[in-house]
Amino acid sequence: MRTTKVEIRRGTYYDSIILMQLQLSLSQIPGVNNAGVMMGVAANKEILKQNGLLTAEAEAAFPDDLIISVECDDTTTADAALAEVDNLLSSRKSTSEQDYLPKSVEAAAQMLPNAKWALISVPGQYAAGVAREALRLQKNVFLYSDNVSIEDEIALKHEAGHSGLLLMGPDCGTSIVNNTGFGFANQVRRGPIGLVGASGTGLQQVTARIDQLGSGITHALGTGGRDLSAEVGGITALQCLGLLQRDPETQVIVLISKPPAQTVTTTLLQSARTVDKPVVVYFIGYPAVTTDENSHNIHFARSLDETAELAVQLVTAAATPSPAKNKPVRFAKDQRYLRGLFSGGTLAQESLFILQNYLPNIHSNIAHEKEQQLNDLKRSREHTLLDLGEDAFTVGRPHPMLDNNLRLARFQQEAADPEVAIILMDIVLGHGAHPDPASELAPAISAARTRAQKAKRELEIVVVLVGTEDDPQNIASQMERLRTAGARVEKSNTVACAYVGQRLQRQLQPGKLPPVDLAILQEPVAAINVGLESFASSLANQTAAVVHVDWRPPAGGNEKLMSILERMKKAQNN
Amino acid sequence: MRTTKVEIRRGTYYDSIILMQLQLSLSQIPGVNNAGVMMGVAANKEILKQNGLLTAEAEAAFPDDLIISVECDDTTTADAALAEVDNLLSSRKSTSEQDYLPKSVEAAAQMLPNAKWALISVPGQYAAGVAREALRLQKNVFLYSDNVSIEDEIALKHEAGHSGLLLMGPDCGTSIVNNTGFGFANQVRRGPIGLVGASGTGLQQVTARIDQLGSGITHALGTGGRDLSAEVGGITALQCLGLLQRDPETQVIVLISKPPAQTVTTTLLQSARTVDKPVVVYFIGYPAVTTDENSHNIHFARSLDETAELAVQLVTAAATPSPAKNKPVRFAKDQRYLRGLFSGGTLAQESLFILQNYLPNIHSNIAHEKEQQLNDLKRSREHTLLDLGEDAFTVGRPHPMLDNNLRLARFQQEAADPEVAIILMDIVLGHGAHPDPASELAPAISAARTRAQKAKRELEIVVVLVGTEDDPQNIASQMERLRTAGARVEKSNTVACAYVGQRLQRQLQPGKLPPVDLAILQEPVAAINVGLESFASSLANQTAAVVHVDWRPPAGGNEKLMSILERMKKAQNN
Repeated sequence: MRTTKVEIRRGTYYDSIILMQLQLSLSQIPGVNNAGVMMGVAANKEILKQNGLLTAEAEAAFPDDLIISVECDDTTTADAALAEVDNLLSSRKSTSEQDYLPKSVEAAAQMLPNAKWALISVPGQYAAGVAREALRLQKNVFLYSDNVSIEDEIALKHEAGHSGLLLMGPDCGTSIVNNTGFGFANQVRRGPIGLVGASGTGLQQVTARIDQLGSGITHALGTGGRDLSAEVGGITALQCLGLLQRDPETQVIVLISKPPAQTVTTTLLQSARTVDKPVVVYFIGYPAVTTDENSHNIHFARSLDETAELAVQLVTAAATPSPAKNKPVRFAKDQRYLRGLFSGGTLAQESLFILQNYLPNIHSNIAHEKEQQLNDLKRSREHTLLDLGEDAFTVGRPHPMLDNNLRLARFQQEAADPEVAIILMDIVLGHGAHPDPASELAPAISAARTRAQKAKRELEIVVVLVGTEDDPQNIASQMERLRTAGARVEKSNTVACAYVGQRLQRQLQPGKLPPVDLAILQEPVAAINVGLESFASSLANQTAAVVHVDWRPPAGGNEKLMSILERMKKAQNN
Repeated sequence: MRTTKVEIRRGTYYDSIILMQLQLSLSQIPGVNNAGVMMGVAANKEILKQNGLLTAEAEAAFPDDLIISVECDDTTTADAALAEVDNLLSSRKSTSEQDYLPKSVEAAAQMLPNAKWALISVPGQYAAGVAREALRLQKNVFLYSDNVSIEDEIALKHEAGHSGLLLMGPDCGTSIVNNTGFGFANQVRRGPIGLVGASGTGLQQVTARIDQLGSGITHALGTGGRDLSAEVGGITALQCLGLLQRDPETQVIVLISKPPAQTVTTTLLQSARTVDKPVVVYFIGYPAVTTDENSHNIHFARSLDETAELAVQLVTAAATPSPAKNKPVRFAKDQRYLRGLFSGGTLAQESLFILQNYLPNIHSNIAHEKEQQLNDLKRSREHTLLDLGEDAFTVGRPHPMLDNNLRLARFQQEAADPEVAIILMDIVLGHGAHPDPASELAPAISAARTRAQKAKRELEIVVVLVGTEDDPQNIASQMERLRTAGARVEKSNTVACAYVGQRLQRQLQPGKLPPVDLAILQEPVAAINVGLESFASSLANQTAAVVHVDWRPPAGGNEKLMSILERMKKAQNN
């Protein structure tokens, strides 16, 4: 008679791959129809249930309990199978070939003193503790474990950052450091492209495609998926960008991420613009924009495929030095902000999207994000961009493309604000529009600049001029008069916005964190592995030096005891 | 002594440009320092205030009142200036050169019986009524007026659509029809590119850039900024796409919009894919994706500039016919849905973004939009895409790139669902990953397909295979075994997703709305103009036939009386 028998081992720990192998071995015993070996968490119980392996006893197991369940032709076979468990566990060939397994990270560090890395893949609840230990031993950490809290992540990254160490992860699936793959990594040819990714399979797909395209990589550095969240602030990504900037073998940099927080996007792009190498950026789901490629080094891609293609193309171009830039005039100390006064809704919308790549928190009457919306339309706040053609501004008056009065009044208001550095405006020519906008705007621009100069300020006016040579307003004459009045005039909105963004982006605080030692990318990898044994054997297969730690949950997985131990350790360290 | 004097004319109507001109004329009278002529809405009072032109009397004016305010050197000059107002108004040279101005749209239609168009730019509160009248007279409507409710927009567009007429707008700033610009429009060379835009200055910038690049346009059709909202559903944009598809002179189509609603995006792209011409798409702020250009005709741009450049480039390529496609196997009647089972988070994320271009409402555990989030992770709903590497799935078990158990269980669940047509999976090779995923997945794929065939279903399995030739798993053998099992295997996620999307996108209901008469694009423009007189003269300057209507607000602007009149008219028509 078919029967399902279960053994529960309270508080027992094996790494999850060993359990997977035990399950396979059990299911291959003659007379065993099905076997399940899993920790007693809800998702696993669900799988056992679907496979007819969940008894009432297994249903009652705790998350820390190991459930071993077999479904057999008869009770005798079931009992015999369960009796085999210990033999199977002890007879399994260890995947690492170490004679002696140290019991702690510290002991492992003594065995492999030149190890600069610790790979950590223990279950989530223990991961932060192990990572802290590794950081104290001055190891750079590749933290594969998931289910680590964001509070722990922030604390660990701050600790690592201030010690000049990298903490990649948590939930960091992949990295390739100096030809050695950590966690999941493809065997990719060596070449001139360095990558930073807040996305594991993103890095894998792009590195694999780079290899397929015949090129190769220097390093692919994972940061963990939450690194670019507003809370974490991209600490690891910024460190990695710095490393690749300094790495002489990296000619082109790739930066990939799932959609990052807007503030982090701005910071990262600002940082990437200071790099003197081309940077290909792919933020999945982020509204990609093209920017003026002559004025800086950022190239936005629209897919993982295109990211790889662009990077490979740019390798040849990378040798060409960027042209020297004219030093623009300097703003006064308090002049920090942009005021955009648009008559065209689409031009305003596109400008908002482009400028977000340079400036954090642009307030606007057309912003989608609540925190960016301008509540009092009459008063600008910090960076502000207005679509003056919106309904609220046009009740009872002509559209601003016809009637400059409202815009001129606002222009004077903004020009008088000592915190304003640049005023950005569009002028749209053509049938139906104002017959001669320069006649009204040029004198206003000229007067505002003169007033500002008298007040020891340099007010910059940037105009996007939309029109053709056949438009009734005479575009050449419009442009000439606006330029004579002192405005910078561009025909392309993209070019105008990229210029404004570059002029106003905040200078990054340099040296906030000490630089990470470039040697970690240049020396052959030596690492301590804590957690999944298969990761140690994978490193060994790649001829990296590795010591695997025979790690067990502290206090046998008993959470109360663990927290007492943790507090004792903290007290000791303080 | 300097003095400000105000005259209030209750319920008086002049179009806003005439008021602007009156203001200019008054301010040019010697002794007048400043003048303001505006309707009594709050925004205007603010401007008068800033200019020292707001008296207590003006402050008390109603929105329907005309405020005439002059600031003069003395009272006598002020009185004299105000006494001039009627002279200035009657002596102004009419910008249209008509001898007789009809008082209604109907009378204008009799004067210009071949007019296919009505241009409407009356104040928002009257605009829907005038548009309705024009539609009843079988005119296509260019509705420049803003401040029209979305309810009115929906009603008007449905009425127009079912009559085979276009209603462009409300708040439609621009269109170019057969060389004639409506509203605001640049003088652009004639050429092979046709445009549809839910954005006025977007159309202007792109048409101007096309002209600057030496090419030209057939027509540029505006839809109004709200056309691509979920409520309106892109009625006008779909009609315009249909027109340009049928227009023999249009070789390449451009589609521009401010960020559209997701459902409308999907519908529009589906419609654009049925067009046998290249379509360049720029949805500002929409996460652009590249898609497989061999499999269809959509080209995503990342800026207004790039939109123009792509369109011009594609003109030469447009002549090349697209390759014949293999007819894929047919799904059973109920097979409609995709189930995506991903081990890689980034691949899942990118797939979600790409597939949203084809399929509406994909449910997922990694969706950002609330309505897309999958509440019960155990059960898929309609189109569902899962990232099985998310924390919720990995507590107490190895990552799905190592352990196929969870994915195999879910695969079987999805494969048994008679509504499922395609299962999409990623397989990521490399160090650290499962040593031989095909050994577990290929038999499952083969078995599931066989079971489905027995149940008279065609289950399609699409696999994205990420890896290199040097990976330990042997990519060629993995691919071979997966293909033998009946899976379609792609190395590029973009290509795999584009394939899946095309297979599953719903067939558009053809002929829901009658086609709009192509003649409106081919005949010389003849139009009735209601509202801003300057638009009539602009049409006349472009040698279009135009009749301007001497329109006044019904019932002298009295809103109570107006609503009674409106109800009487409705009763009459029913």
